[in-house]
Amino acid sequence: MGSVHRFIGSGNDYDWEGVPAEIYEAEGVHGAIKRVLVGKPDGAPNFVMRYFQIEPGGHSRLERHTHEHGVIILQGKAKVQLNEEFVTLEPLDAVFVAGNDLHQFTNIADEPLGFICVITANI
Amino acid sequence: MGSVHRFIGSGNDYDWEGVPAEIYEAEGVHGAIKRVLVGKPDGAPNFVMRYFQIEPGGHSRLERHTHEHGVIILQGKAKVQLNEEFVTLEPLDAVFVAGNDLHQFTNIADEPLGFICVITANI
Repeated sequence: MGSVHRFIGSGNDYDWEGVPAEIYEAEGVHGAIKRVLVGKPDGAPNFVMRYFQIEPGGHSRLERHTHEHGVIILQGKAKVQLNEEFVTLEPLDAVFVAGNDLHQFTNIADEPLGFICVITANI
Repeated sequence: MGSVHRFIGSGNDYDWEGVPAEIYEAEGVHGAIKRVLVGKPDGAPNFVMRYFQIEPGGHSRLERHTHEHGVIILQGKAKVQLNEEFVTLEPLDAVFVAGNDLHQFTNIADEPLGFICVITANI
């Protein structure tokens, strides 16, 4: 049976009922969090829909892996690295990070960066 | 290699570069569209991230299938049916529709309803 995680955020601090904030760790990054909006805790077998929030000055890990990402920006402004390319992103821009792309999301504004990032559950 | 679909929407009419609008058909529904933000056209093997926009008075199909959905509301106001339960949804509310749940999203406002809906690519 499905379920709803109601949005209970305030201002730039996005939050959902029944969704714990997990610390997201990356080298040199503080105050970044991850929230699993739909995933294994709900019983979703195939994919995981996560929300990441990264404070000003922060970034995600610079990484490369075989599984792909589907991303949509919800708030703030980012620069994304895709191999040797860098693209500036604003709210509602959608990004496909292919498997084996070297990638990193960097907050380039003075407010939190928030985005949805989907991955397969089978990694 | 990954790619970016930049948001080029205007007002309530959400649109992205390089993402065609497909007619979404459901009994009695007109003017509903689907846009694949990340999926097979990008080369994503595991999941599909779609945007649905449903005009006032419209709804998605009432349906039941074995694969699950991960949904996040982007604009408007919805009522979702999950088996015998009905829940009102507002922007940024997240919904897990489990496999085999009877489900339907209905626009209950006077403006477009827009939401992200993720499914596995393996159906």
